[in-house]
Amino acid sequence: MIHGPRVPTLVTAYPAMFAVIVCAVLPFGSATGVRIEPDRASAVVQIRSLLRAQEAAWNRGDIDGFMAGYAHSQSTIFVSQGEVRRGWEAVRTRYRKKYSDRAKMGTLTFFDLEITPLSKDAAVAIGRWELKRTKDRPHGRFTLILRLLPEGWRIILDHTSAAQ
Amino acid sequence: MIHGPRVPTLVTAYPAMFAVIVCAVLPFGSATGVRIEPDRASAVVQIRSLLRAQEAAWNRGDIDGFMAGYAHSQSTIFVSQGEVRRGWEAVRTRYRKKYSDRAKMGTLTFFDLEITPLSKDAAVAIGRWELKRTKDRPHGRFTLILRLLPEGWRIILDHTSAAQ
Repeated sequence: MIHGPRVPTLVTAYPAMFAVIVCAVLPFGSATGVRIEPDRASAVVQIRSLLRAQEAAWNRGDIDGFMAGYAHSQSTIFVSQGEVRRGWEAVRTRYRKKYSDRAKMGTLTFFDLEITPLSKDAAVAIGRWELKRTKDRPHGRFTLILRLLPEGWRIILDHTSAAQ
Repeated sequence: MIHGPRVPTLVTAYPAMFAVIVCAVLPFGSATGVRIEPDRASAVVQIRSLLRAQEAAWNRGDIDGFMAGYAHSQSTIFVSQGEVRRGWEAVRTRYRKKYSDRAKMGTLTFFDLEITPLSKDAAVAIGRWELKRTKDRPHGRFTLILRLLPEGWRIILDHTSAAQ
């Protein structure tokens, strides 16, 4: 059930801590009465891992690795600066143009992640982002909609905005 | 199943058109195999009606009427300009401060609404917003997460950003 390079290491190193995390998530129930509690805990762990993997990919200059967090679909949506990009390819093109070299990419950090499952196969994540670059430090907020696809949790919609 | 002042009029006036809309929505299935097709069609109609009611409330200067579209909950979230407001009251306070008179409110229009149910009781809506005011015409994009509550569909998260 658990993918990604970080989680197995974490579970191996801190099994007791992992049990605490899982138990802490379990009390959240579903309004529909469907038993999705174990899925909720698993979803939060997996989505957090996905976003940490995106951050790590960005910080080694790997935009395609970063893009692996998005659903490889024509219906994937990226909303930013009053514009909408539709489809995985269009989102990738935007990133490659806007961050065309390592200096422009800077160092990305995601803060204050809040991941809320909406159903067994849908979740919303909000958080803050910051780029540390030589000349500036742009930052802002993002809202992500994720779906559980056969390949795992993937972002299907990303609304990212910059603080003014 | 269908609420709101607009829809019954539409259904009465254009029953064939309504049938086409319903049938057009039916082919979308749920990945979980749950039969939510009639709920999907109903959700899209009800959420569109909710957003049109928000627009109408705004344009008669009624911020509390506009706020009726949001879940009256401490966990309702509004993300904008790098900031997060938490709770219905905090969101209302922001609107009342930022749009403290009729001139600042201007005339609100929502465009290009796209409503996508995520489950029986969760949906995402994206769209464009524009304020027509005497001195300017701010505009941008919004992403809304909605939940089906006992009182109907309500916005639980709103990420609104302005075009630059």
